[in-house]
Amino acid sequence: MGRGRKPAEQTREKLADRYHAVRVATVALAAPLSPEDQLLQSMPDASPVKWHLGHTSWFFEKLVLGAKPLCPDYDFLFNSYFEAIGARVARGARGMLSRPSHDEVLAYRDHVDEGIDGALQGGRLSPRQLQLLELGLNHEQQHQELILTDVKHALSQNPLRPAYRTPKRAPAARPRAAAVTWKAFPEGLQWIGAEPEGFAFDNERPRHRVFVEAFELATRTVTCGEYLAFIDDGGYRRPELWLSDGWAAVQTQGWRAPLYWEEAQGEWLHFTLFGQRPVDSEEPVCHLSQYEADAYARWAGARLPTEAEWELAARDVPVEGNFVESGRLHPAPATRGPGLALFGDVWEWTQSAYAPYPGFRPEPGAVSEYNGKFMSGQLLLRGGSCASPASHLRATYRNFFPPIARWQFSGLRLAR
Amino acid sequence: MGRGRKPAEQTREKLADRYHAVRVATVALAAPLSPEDQLLQSMPDASPVKWHLGHTSWFFEKLVLGAKPLCPDYDFLFNSYFEAIGARVARGARGMLSRPSHDEVLAYRDHVDEGIDGALQGGRLSPRQLQLLELGLNHEQQHQELILTDVKHALSQNPLRPAYRTPKRAPAARPRAAAVTWKAFPEGLQWIGAEPEGFAFDNERPRHRVFVEAFELATRTVTCGEYLAFIDDGGYRRPELWLSDGWAAVQTQGWRAPLYWEEAQGEWLHFTLFGQRPVDSEEPVCHLSQYEADAYARWAGARLPTEAEWELAARDVPVEGNFVESGRLHPAPATRGPGLALFGDVWEWTQSAYAPYPGFRPEPGAVSEYNGKFMSGQLLLRGGSCASPASHLRATYRNFFPPIARWQFSGLRLAR
Amino acid sequence: MGRGRKPAEQTREKLADRYHAVRVATVALAAPLSPEDQLLQSMPDASPVKWHLGHTSWFFEKLVLGAKPLCPDYDFLFNSYFEAIGARVARGARGMLSRPSHDEVLAYRDHVDEGIDGALQGGRLSPRQLQLLELGLNHEQQHQELILTDVKHALSQNPLRPAYRTPKRAPAARPRAAAVTWKAFPEGLQWIGAEPEGFAFDNERPRHRVFVEAFELATRTVTCGEYLAFIDDGGYRRPELWLSDGWAAVQTQGWRAPLYWEEAQGEWLHFTLFGQRPVDSEEPVCHLSQYEADAYARWAGARLPTEAEWELAARDVPVEGNFVESGRLHPAPATRGPGLALFGDVWEWTQSAYAPYPGFRPEPGAVSEYNGKFMSGQLLLRGGSCASPASHLRATYRNFFPPIARWQFSGLRLAR
Amino acid sequence: MGRGRKPAEQTREKLADRYHAVRVATVALAAPLSPEDQLLQSMPDASPVKWHLGHTSWFFEKLVLGAKPLCPDYDFLFNSYFEAIGARVARGARGMLSRPSHDEVLAYRDHVDEGIDGALQGGRLSPRQLQLLELGLNHEQQHQELILTDVKHALSQNPLRPAYRTPKRAPAARPRAAAVTWKAFPEGLQWIGAEPEGFAFDNERPRHRVFVEAFELATRTVTCGEYLAFIDDGGYRRPELWLSDGWAAVQTQGWRAPLYWEEAQGEWLHFTLFGQRPVDSEEPVCHLSQYEADAYARWAGARLPTEAEWELAARDVPVEGNFVESGRLHPAPATRGPGLALFGDVWEWTQSAYAPYPGFRPEPGAVSEYNGKFMSGQLLLRGGSCASPASHLRATYRNFFPPIARWQFSGLRLAR
Repeated sequence: MGRGRKPAEQTREKLADRYHAVRVATVALAAPLSPEDQLLQSMPDASPVKWHLGHTSWFFEKLVLGAKPLCPDYDFLFNSYFEAIGARVARGARGMLSRPSHDEVLAYRDHVDEGIDGALQGGRLSPRQLQLLELGLNHEQQHQELILTDVKHALSQNPLRPAYRTPKRAPAARPRAAAVTWKAFPEGLQWIGAEPEGFAFDNERPRHRVFVEAFELATRTVTCGEYLAFIDDGGYRRPELWLSDGWAAVQTQGWRAPLYWEEAQGEWLHFTLFGQRPVDSEEPVCHLSQYEADAYARWAGARLPTEAEWELAARDVPVEGNFVESGRLHPAPATRGPGLALFGDVWEWTQSAYAPYPGFRPEPGAVSEYNGKFMSGQLLLRGGSCASPASHLRATYRNFFPPIARWQFSGLRLAR
Repeated sequence: MGRGRKPAEQTREKLADRYHAVRVATVALAAPLSPEDQLLQSMPDASPVKWHLGHTSWFFEKLVLGAKPLCPDYDFLFNSYFEAIGARVARGARGMLSRPSHDEVLAYRDHVDEGIDGALQGGRLSPRQLQLLELGLNHEQQHQELILTDVKHALSQNPLRPAYRTPKRAPAARPRAAAVTWKAFPEGLQWIGAEPEGFAFDNERPRHRVFVEAFELATRTVTCGEYLAFIDDGGYRRPELWLSDGWAAVQTQGWRAPLYWEEAQGEWLHFTLFGQRPVDSEEPVCHLSQYEADAYARWAGARLPTEAEWELAARDVPVEGNFVESGRLHPAPATRGPGLALFGDVWEWTQSAYAPYPGFRPEPGAVSEYNGKFMSGQLLLRGGSCASPASHLRATYRNFFPPIARWQFSGLRLAR
Repeated sequence: MGRGRKPAEQTREKLADRYHAVRVATVALAAPLSPEDQLLQSMPDASPVKWHLGHTSWFFEKLVLGAKPLCPDYDFLFNSYFEAIGARVARGARGMLSRPSHDEVLAYRDHVDEGIDGALQGGRLSPRQLQLLELGLNHEQQHQELILTDVKHALSQNPLRPAYRTPKRAPAARPRAAAVTWKAFPEGLQWIGAEPEGFAFDNERPRHRVFVEAFELATRTVTCGEYLAFIDDGGYRRPELWLSDGWAAVQTQGWRAPLYWEEAQGEWLHFTLFGQRPVDSEEPVCHLSQYEADAYARWAGARLPTEAEWELAARDVPVEGNFVESGRLHPAPATRGPGLALFGDVWEWTQSAYAPYPGFRPEPGAVSEYNGKFMSGQLLLRGGSCASPASHLRATYRNFFPPIARWQFSGLRLAR
Repeated sequence: MGRGRKPAEQTREKLADRYHAVRVATVALAAPLSPEDQLLQSMPDASPVKWHLGHTSWFFEKLVLGAKPLCPDYDFLFNSYFEAIGARVARGARGMLSRPSHDEVLAYRDHVDEGIDGALQGGRLSPRQLQLLELGLNHEQQHQELILTDVKHALSQNPLRPAYRTPKRAPAARPRAAAVTWKAFPEGLQWIGAEPEGFAFDNERPRHRVFVEAFELATRTVTCGEYLAFIDDGGYRRPELWLSDGWAAVQTQGWRAPLYWEEAQGEWLHFTLFGQRPVDSEEPVCHLSQYEADAYARWAGARLPTEAEWELAARDVPVEGNFVESGRLHPAPATRGPGLALFGDVWEWTQSAYAPYPGFRPEPGAVSEYNGKFMSGQLLLRGGSCASPASHLRATYRNFFPPIARWQFSGLRLAR
């Protein structure tokens, strides 16, 4: 950053650096997988890794650069859900795309990277395009997490239970989870939501007031050991613990434990990104639906927090924890003692439906479809997981999934 | 109320009167239908009229009196969804119950009425049982409305498009709907929910504070004429107007208009409880899903109200309007000018998910399943309809259905 | 038949008598059922009794008289599958027809009977119409059997397990089934199929030659006791006994015994037209799919006969046995000793696919759809059942159902 | 074949040569495809190419050598439908097997080849094992054809319409199909089925007598041009031409033309193994269901042949034609003039259900499941296609598929 460099240039350079860091991280997440692995699609809700690689590139090409697609079919192949842009391959048919080949998709990434680089270096991006570039980076980070959760789901279908990758090193001595305590918050009229400046998704705004009654929040999330006590107490056989939709899911899906859990000779195993492993009772429980989280909370004599409660608790907590950068790719026991640790490890289900904040306005243009149209039938998760990039998270961040979804790293924290 | 009568006796007598009034009203609603009509079940969400007659009686027998069932199988046949009570006939198979016959079910009603009468006269009902009796009456009123909406749905499947009953008299000159205006409400921290005294469902409590920003509410609901403008403007063909789930419903269900509407030779007809009729543009539009209500509001540059907004607006409005007692059994044009008319005609979709109020506690006992377990995946409707008994409604009343449901008398009012 | 009557008149009179006998028999079969019972439809393959009453009348009105329908909608309501005639109510939605009422359908029957009577008396029916009248009578007899099998299926869905009617008298002392022996037939080139004269369905013609190898046929059908040995020997758990499609059905349908069988406290019960009863080991087993019949035969070291084998064996056997006229409405033990008893009690599955005979020509006109278009995916049954009218059967008669169907009175006889 | 070589040795050597020729041919068919392509599974009925490579090897390892699997999981992964051998991966989930990798499957092939080679050279295969080896080779040839038809179906799902491979050379001048004439055959009692000696599948035996009436067979199969006339004459809109199941398929599947056909700007295109191409009216029509073949025949005033008719016609016809060895991988116009050309180009649907021949006995042992258990719900095809290996076919060969199947190279020849 020598003398004579102009601030705009510096900003551009910083943005270029960040762009490359994000783009490289995506490819690095795909690297342990063969082209065959990257083609797997195990359900319509999950996408092949190769498609994630292409779709995130298409986002920059189409929505940031507004460029003609490298291949005319890419608008059709790599559009996710933007109706305004046009028709696209059926969501559940993405696993049929053996062509373009894996190499061709990597070449497409390079092509888009050159386009962005050139536009950035040449100062050819308008202020709106720079905003959209920032959106594109956050979008790509979301897909980084999905690459991991989607391929975990796909590999779990294989009777060989293959690992995404082998662990770097033997796991250290097994740590114990800290005892759970309750942190109290007073009632009051409070502001939540993102400030107008800085990057945030449109669904985090506008900042607005909510009245919150006094509440308490557990200092850590529920562990596998605690959840096992729920199972052993007949949790999955007692309708009185469940929401009606949840109980229907238990019966029609045959749920008896969290996703990926399997009982073999009296021991609980679960599938992880490192293959099948014994369940560690000290780890945060995850791969729960919201129904299971809710039933557990009812069984425990508590409840799920609202998203406002969670956000109020989080606003002064640093974004620190077990994120994707740790390479653990699995929740780790919460050892940090009595303070609130709210970020990382597992997304925390709330009881709040995903709804617009008062005065919500979607982003203008094609990206107006990014968030707003999903505000129906979904529930809020907060906090980020062991598969989330650290720089992607903040206290106001709103993640959302249908209550029946289990393939994310989703757990829970009790409130009362 | 002669001399010498004790207050407890008077209360008992009043309750007995009210009990009989409600019970008789149910039978009267079924009366225009043949036993064959009363057996129809057109979808799992709707029940045969005969089943409603039996189930509401079973509620008093089982949950109020705690009596042995008249027939041992009736617990199995007439339990709706109370898991704690045990197994029951599959919801979608209620239409297969040709036995017990229609006459047997009416005899069952008489039997239960005698039981209640005897217990009331004999002063043998505990205070808790008296509460449950009140709950049973409100429960029966809910089923009165369902009798009408369910049989409307069933009759609509018949290509003959038969009428539930013939109109008492020719409709008067067609009235015009009043012009819509907006009523403004200031921001503020407000109390909503039912007071602790008097009957209310558990889900209306506890009364609690919410912060509501300033808002405006339309003085009347949207009319068929206004909704036709939405249709004519391509409302059902423009994905940008729809929530993602709503757009999926439009496509998979082939929606092109509200439920029961049909275009024939350039004219819109709709099926009513009096058979097929031309759509009257002055009437409130109804049989909308929440998705359609939401899309219409977006198209109109407005939005759906929250349930808190609606309740705040309603708290000083008298419960007056077009209810089941009018015998119109169809929404009527809102002619009452600039004041807010919030009750009757059509249930009004809100944007609020059905969720527990802070500190919500379900009723104790088996009836704990009455409301709480449905607090997932449903949305709030407010205000009551032309099929609701007047005495059943109040400003705090919370009705709820999945957003895709269309067979209730459900319309919308705009907010902004 | 006094002097002076002309032969044509006599024939007309005989036909009129036969017409009335058949028509009255249909109404008599429906008589034990309430209008509610007669509305039941338990699956798309089965129809409400009321619909059978209407459809058989429509057949005479439309296809014999060629008359304008009594009500314009009846072509839509009561057409079964005649595409050439036009659109019709969806097969699975016949149970939604509470209107026309039961009484209206009976009045429709009377109206059609008057039409036929008048035309017959007036000598106004052409030779082709007289043929179609004969077809209509046979058609109605087929629906008589379906009335019983369809309502049996419908009543079996009711947890009360109600009876179609109460038995006339207490069953006599329980007879024993005769010992099974084998009757041998030599190889040879043989004629099968119906002669050109006399009534037969088009699918029984033309008479043609087939070469049949030497074979043996069991003298009676398989009993419940014999079938129980198959069950007890793990018949439903051993894939090697089953056709691939049959094994798939066992698994997806959860078959463990014939339809209507239920094990309770170590005893096998089954649902009959007289309600739930213990399985009688001496009775012919019935309500089997062709898959079960085939698996049983393989287990027994035998096989199912071909339809040609069955017909050759039957050609000199009188049409005697337990038919609908006996009023037993249930298969009875075969007590008749060593001779072949081939008719009545249960339809006998063959291994033959339903296919056109060489040179097959469908009936001309709209009734060409009667049989020919179903010659795909169905298998042949022979012999008639306890629900068949005696006068409806003959050695060349070809009944057919998909191999998975179990709601007919269908059993099996072994061949080898 | 030098001096001193014993006949057994020579036979072994010939068998080893044939084994290698077949095994190499399979790998050669997969060679134009990337590992990604080879993983595609487009429907449960079709399998990934990689799975075909593994399964055919497993057949030799398990059923011929009776060896321990190279990997313990391979019995689970590569068993197709042999219930006696045990559980296996769900048919529709074969596309989820990114592991074992493509290279590992090729290594598995080598391992099995070494095993067979060693056993053959060492003279360690029993006579029964040598029979099973022959069965294994015929089995592998069946999968060679499936590799082509399955990958064609999979690639057709890709909106890019990618080619399996590029044509070797530009197509020559477009040849004309010969005029169709009819060849007559007299009535008579005839023998059909395979002689006891030599290889044939169990379902081709025993040889037995059938009586066949006089018939005529068209000298060539129906062309695309002829089929277009059927389409243009409303063939897909006229229920009277269709079997009932076929008409249902037309409506539920939305059929308007053969599989892979698409109309674009007034021209018919179809997807081939070389990508999208205009339909050539002179080529045999293919990718028809039996329903379509049957409807066409009815429209043309003819019918489908029975399998006996076809076999009688074929017994003196040499097995010559357009097979997989030609590399055309697509049916070619029948230019050979007035003689009967019965083999190659397209499989010919018959009207015959797949049923056991009189006296049929399945192969002993685990391979008893090979054919017999599928004798339900399927129809016979005869003659072989442009994707069949020439050495795999003979006049008695019985191919079978459900009548709704369209992804094989299946066409029709008229009979009358």
